Formats: sequence, C-alpha cells, structure tokens
Amino acid sequence: MIEVYTGNGKGKTTAALGLAFRAVGQGLRVYMIQFMKAHEYGEVRASKSFPNFELVQFGRKEFVSKKNPERIDVELARKGLAHAKEIIGSKKYDMVILDEINVAIDFGLIPVEEVIELIKDQSAEIILTGRYADDRIIKIADYVSEIKEVKHPYKKGETAREGIEY
Amino acid sequence: MIEVYTGNGKGKTTAALGLAFRAVGQGLRVYMIQFMKAHEYGEVRASKSFPNFELVQFGRKEFVSKKNPERIDVELARKGLAHAKEIIGSKKYDMVILDEINVAIDFGLIPVEEVIELIKDQSAEIILTGRYADDRIIKIADYVSEIKEVKHPYKKGETAREGIEY
Repeated sequence: MIEVYTGNGKGKTTAALGLAFRAVGQGLRVYMIQFMKAHEYGEVRASKSFPNFELVQFGRKEFVSKKNPERIDVELARKGLAHAKEIIGSKKYDMVILDEINVAIDFGLIPVEEVIELIKDQSAEIILTGRYADDRIIKIADYVSEIKEVKHPYKKGETAREGIEY
Repeated sequence: MIEVYTGNGKGKTTAALGLAFRAVGQGLRVYMIQFMKAHEYGEVRASKSFPNFELVQFGRKEFVSKKNPERIDVELARKGLAHAKEIIGSKKYDMVILDEINVAIDFGLIPVEEVIELIKDQSAEIILTGRYADDRIIKIADYVSEIKEVKHPYKKGETAREGIEY
C-alpha cells in the first residue's frame, strides 16, 4: 500500500517514524530515505539504536531555492531516487519511507513520473512525506493524510529542540 | 511543552509514536498512557522491544457509546487519569503521551479541568492525541496539528492491518 503524509503541519516525518516504530517493534524491516535533509537529526541517532531500521540522507545543509535549485541539489535528489529504486527493487524491506520526497518533486528536483513508476504495484508498504504532494501521487495512494498547522510555537519565538522536533 | 494531535485523519497516535521513537532512540524516557484502548495493538508489542518506553492501556475492547457510556468506561478512564497524575508527578519521564485523551474528554469520561490542571507547567514533554480536542486544551497547548483524512482505503472495503495500522 501507498501512504502519503502531506500538509503544512508538524508531524509528517514524525508519523512516518511512528509507522517505523510499530513495524520495527514487531520485527519488520524498515528503510528510510530522506530527501533534502543532511542534518544530524534525532532520527539519525535513533536509527543507530534500533535493529532493522536503516536510514540514509540525500541532501545538504544549505537551503534549497525552489525557483533556482543548485545543480548539487538536483544531483543529490536523483541519487536518492536511484537508491530508492535499488532498495525497493531488492524486496528486502517490509516498509520503505521516502521522507520529503513530495518536496523534491514539487521543487522539480526529480520527476513525478519516475516516482509513480517506482512505487506502484509494490509489495512493500511505501510511505511518502512532505508538503505539496502531487495530485498524481495522491491519485495512486491508498491513504492520504493532510496535517494542518493549527498552532506552532516557533511563531512565538521558540526554536526547534533537538530530540523532540528533529 | 504541550503538543496536541487531533483531527479525523490517520496518524495521530502514529505521530506520537514517532516522537517516542526519536526520544527513546536518544536515551530519553517515554511513558505512554492509552485511554479507551485495550486491544493488543502493535505498539504494545513494540513497547516490549524498546528500553525506556513504557505503555499502559486503560480501556476495554467493547465500543464506548458517546451518548450513554457505561460506568466501567468512566471508571477505566478515571483510573487512566489517576495513573497519568502519578507518572507525570514522579518526574521520572522526559515525555508522557496521553493517547486518545481528547476523546475521553469529549465523551465526558474525564473532566477537561482536571486534565488542564495536570498538564500545565510541567517540565516533561506532554503529548495529547485524539479527535475533538477541547478548545481549552488547544488554548494552553504550544503545538497543535490537525490531521485531516484526504483518502482512506477502509472506505474501499479494506480492513486494518496488524503491525501497520495498529
């Protein structure tokens, strides 16, 4: 099945991690590929604590400009997509999470057609996260949840806290 | 801080589990109290695999009627709330998840005033999940995310799959 977590609210990557938690806790094998991320996020450290949960990142710390992405951003996203093809094609994993892939598509870093070709008719559970999910992705998905921001403390001047938000 | 995950979409409990995953992966201590749940959910089994993650359920398998809840449902929810007071009061946990507590409040099983009294001004990260979050809870929360259902396969006749959805 294909699940999509999109919208402007907090909890998209976190929901995917929750799915990973349940799955790994029951001995299933989970592979998470993060697009457009390179920071030492909490989940990177968490992944080292859990067997059967692998995580790789294809991104860099610098801000990606939607209007004018750098060639390196395109290259990294395409490498991520090629890696996703390898991982899904290996059929070794029960769940494959393509984190922030919706944004990579929206920014034009990778073509939506290739993503659709990759994820349809797969036996693994495929999870796609990120704002701006493409209509063609939503069309082939089984589940789609939109997470809307109702209230957010950053607006009150708070900063993100390691281990809690990332 | 207080975080709320509400709305009619899939991913509220799952987002809370994702927060638990990140936190536990970094050695923080997490306690999850589930209201109105008693099934052998995937997370119960998962909780046995992870150190520093404890989970207890206060509910029963039978359906709770909103208009006319049984005395046992009220008793179980109140026991859950009393347990939450003990756990939060112990100050032993970095994160306390009160899963489906919004529904327990909405169904009138526990009073919202007591919940507010319990969660405000706490050092632990407090996570509340469930549909129909009370306005007074939203008012004191730092983060509120509403998860909206865009597409759901149960409507196409699928049933929930163990280890993935619960």
